[in-house]
Amino acid sequence: MAKPPKTAITPTRQENYPEWYQQVVKAADLAETSDVRGCMVIKPWGYAIWENIQRQLDAMFKATGHENAYFPLFIPMSFLEKEAQHVEGFAKECAVVTHHRLEPDPEGGLRPAPSAKLDEPLIVRPTSETIIGATFSRWVQSYRDLPILINQWANVVRWELRTRMFLRTTEFLWQEGHTVHSTAEEAEQETRQMLDVYADFAENSMAMPVIKGEKTAGERFPGAVATYSIEALMQDRKALQAGTSHFLGQNFAKAQEIKFQDPSGDEVYAWTTSWGVSTRLIGGLIMTHSDDDGLVLPPKLAPAHVAILPIYRNYDERPDVLAYCEALKKELVAQRFCDEPVRVRIDDRDVRGGEKKWQWVKRGVPLRVEVGPRDVAAGKVFAARRDVGGKGEGVDRNTFVAQISATLTDMQQTLYDRAAAIRKEATVTIDDLGEFEKFFADSAPGGLAYCHFVDGPEMEAQLKKLKVTARCVPVDAEEESGKCIFTGQPSNLRGVFARAY
Amino acid sequence: MAKPPKTAITPTRQENYPEWYQQVVKAADLAETSDVRGCMVIKPWGYAIWENIQRQLDAMFKATGHENAYFPLFIPMSFLEKEAQHVEGFAKECAVVTHHRLEPDPEGGLRPAPSAKLDEPLIVRPTSETIIGATFSRWVQSYRDLPILINQWANVVRWELRTRMFLRTTEFLWQEGHTVHSTAEEAEQETRQMLDVYADFAENSMAMPVIKGEKTAGERFPGAVATYSIEALMQDRKALQAGTSHFLGQNFAKAQEIKFQDPSGDEVYAWTTSWGVSTRLIGGLIMTHSDDDGLVLPPKLAPAHVAILPIYRNYDERPDVLAYCEALKKELVAQRFCDEPVRVRIDDRDVRGGEKKWQWVKRGVPLRVEVGPRDVAAGKVFAARRDVGGKGEGVDRNTFVAQISATLTDMQQTLYDRAAAIRKEATVTIDDLGEFEKFFADSAPGGLAYCHFVDGPEMEAQLKKLKVTARCVPVDAEEESGKCIFTGQPSNLRGVFARAY
Repeated sequence: MAKPPKTAITPTRQENYPEWYQQVVKAADLAETSDVRGCMVIKPWGYAIWENIQRQLDAMFKATGHENAYFPLFIPMSFLEKEAQHVEGFAKECAVVTHHRLEPDPEGGLRPAPSAKLDEPLIVRPTSETIIGATFSRWVQSYRDLPILINQWANVVRWELRTRMFLRTTEFLWQEGHTVHSTAEEAEQETRQMLDVYADFAENSMAMPVIKGEKTAGERFPGAVATYSIEALMQDRKALQAGTSHFLGQNFAKAQEIKFQDPSGDEVYAWTTSWGVSTRLIGGLIMTHSDDDGLVLPPKLAPAHVAILPIYRNYDERPDVLAYCEALKKELVAQRFCDEPVRVRIDDRDVRGGEKKWQWVKRGVPLRVEVGPRDVAAGKVFAARRDVGGKGEGVDRNTFVAQISATLTDMQQTLYDRAAAIRKEATVTIDDLGEFEKFFADSAPGGLAYCHFVDGPEMEAQLKKLKVTARCVPVDAEEESGKCIFTGQPSNLRGVFARAY
Repeated sequence: MAKPPKTAITPTRQENYPEWYQQVVKAADLAETSDVRGCMVIKPWGYAIWENIQRQLDAMFKATGHENAYFPLFIPMSFLEKEAQHVEGFAKECAVVTHHRLEPDPEGGLRPAPSAKLDEPLIVRPTSETIIGATFSRWVQSYRDLPILINQWANVVRWELRTRMFLRTTEFLWQEGHTVHSTAEEAEQETRQMLDVYADFAENSMAMPVIKGEKTAGERFPGAVATYSIEALMQDRKALQAGTSHFLGQNFAKAQEIKFQDPSGDEVYAWTTSWGVSTRLIGGLIMTHSDDDGLVLPPKLAPAHVAILPIYRNYDERPDVLAYCEALKKELVAQRFCDEPVRVRIDDRDVRGGEKKWQWVKRGVPLRVEVGPRDVAAGKVFAARRDVGGKGEGVDRNTFVAQISATLTDMQQTLYDRAAAIRKEATVTIDDLGEFEKFFADSAPGGLAYCHFVDGPEMEAQLKKLKVTARCVPVDAEEESGKCIFTGQPSNLRGVFARAY
């Protein structure tokens, strides 16, 4: 079982990072393209990761007082007209429903029935501020009805020209939080609280270090007063926006007539927020940890922590080996990791041993355990940790079981530390435009540059030329006087700049 | 706190059952109509019931070997053309996407951009057999790839003319299972297994007795070889189809080219099934148990088992009462019901006591607990069971906590028994068409009639006239010779007939 000379994934990260990414998605059985342009099929292994993300985030949302609800998939076009009138940068690429019936056409096929044309087209939600806001305007009468703290798990559609699995697809799955408050302070606090929840989840569950920060004006959600995001660095040194939280001020409340009577009897507009993360997180997860042998999963999100592979040469050996594996599984699932039973799968499929082993490597299962007749006889298992990529080693079965939780905890930390080290190595402080250009030259590796800046069209123009973006101004940035590297104007905060997904 | 002379819901079930239903939905804060025709907003209390349904069913699906995945929301029109050609009864009422962009129109509004018309319209999925089948045809190569056991939790859209919250809405939430097998026997077994899972869930979690049976030809899913359903009886003595499981034979496999190499190397068509339940279950839940004071929830699906209402006359009394309530909550959530912690909410909102109490009655919380200063002093609580509709009584706090699991178990059983008794009383055996007509006369209460029948156009015509439908032939029906009450032809099985939703 020596590791073959070549890597399991072709090409390697070094050779062609974007193509490596697609091959990891494929080799790990996470998703595949569908018959509908830009839409993907999320396969069981990929969807199980999403279920883990959902379950953990959902518990965090509920712990912070939010409740789930469900709002219509469709948005009347007039709702978006209202938004388009007051929001510049309004996205118009969306799926438009114009008919409600099909009928046979003369060629024996089908066509949208002309008699069933809708009076008003419906838009498949690209995000739900308008339809949820219209609902909230009915729910809110008095200050006693506030705050409203709602989350929705849903599918959304944005007609994207260039799509990439998980990172940018026409349809994707996400959660969108929408809240209403009686004061600006409370709404701002909510916005920051959810940013913290996202960062906590990214760092602790995904083992993905993130920078929490506020977006510059050009990157703000249309209609928001302030947009915050968590930004992660991928292994190709490009940044990925992994979640956003918006303080919407009274802008949406005014457009949607979300008003309430305050304690003194005056009718005033409410303050709203919205915040979301999506299946894009899975793209971030892949690009943060995976290697040239395929997916690497942090234990907290792995659909299975342990894959047990029974190894036998003939059917005489099978019953003992299988019984041993079943008993091992039983002992393992009785152990707990992060307040949940350890997740174990026995893979007894009729597939060649080497092929089966590599399937589990490519799928990123944290621990691969092989059990043959000699292990049974010796009370051992052959165990390999995916994070360190080694061949594995024989260990005493009882020790393996007793240490499972500690092992998984160590792997989670190892992955975080490694990602943090990569980020640290790719992070620089730059005070000069020339250096900045060199750092982001096509031939350079790039990374995260902390620079003084003054937000505005001049900076935007320079950044566009260099294909670099302002990621955010970290919320924990310390004031420090300096000069904008783009304009020379005085600046007292550094922003983070990077190439980005 | 005497019960007011009138019921909390107007009208009563007796006075106007359909309107009573709408009022229960409203009073219990389950859902409301939205700004999109036929689509509802599922409010937090209603959605929390759906989350409980999902969690419990999902565990049952996984325990029977199924995995979740996610497939595109859109279906290319050509996929439905293929289906339309071989499936009679193909449903054509659906949402049709024809454009992928909006643009400003001359009047300052928006319109679908003529330049962004899709070459091929996309249909918002009314069900996913076609798109999932096309995917499966790529997944299945060899008998080693089978069975494929997949489930999807998703939203679907069917353009309904007359809608009713939960029971029939344009968009609804559901799960759809789709499986592929190498033999007819295995696929048939899967179909029956999932019918059993649905019946188990309906009876044990929803406390809703159901009849498992096979649909007659006229009620079969288009393209299916056999359709099975679970049928429940509502309090107005109408039947509700609460879940379906279809044996699709090789029909869909042939249309979608799902073929595999069998062990002898021959390429053969696979056998498929599909099965689903939807948010309609919540409609069934409401109509099975609720009364003229509003919703009644079986404990297994209640978002909260216990609502604790602190009662105090002034803010001096508040701290002691609240502390007592918090301690009580802590003790209760440490207790377990059905392998989960007991779910408790403290309602300390600034709302009048009587109004607050009735809100919880109408929302159907199984146990309402009121705590005032005298209860604190005496170590007691005032507890009322929603199922028996009584005023409640003072009980020792420790006893209440110690018995909570037993109390909830008893309530679950009481609800089931009551529903079973209602069904028993409404069930008859009829051997004569005149009696059948009398049983289903507009002035009669109706119910479930077990009758000999011979499936065919003659029966269908008679039933249509009487506005009665064949619900199913129970799977446990015993052979018994008799005569079809519609045609006089010999028959050896009884079917179940009823008015239906």
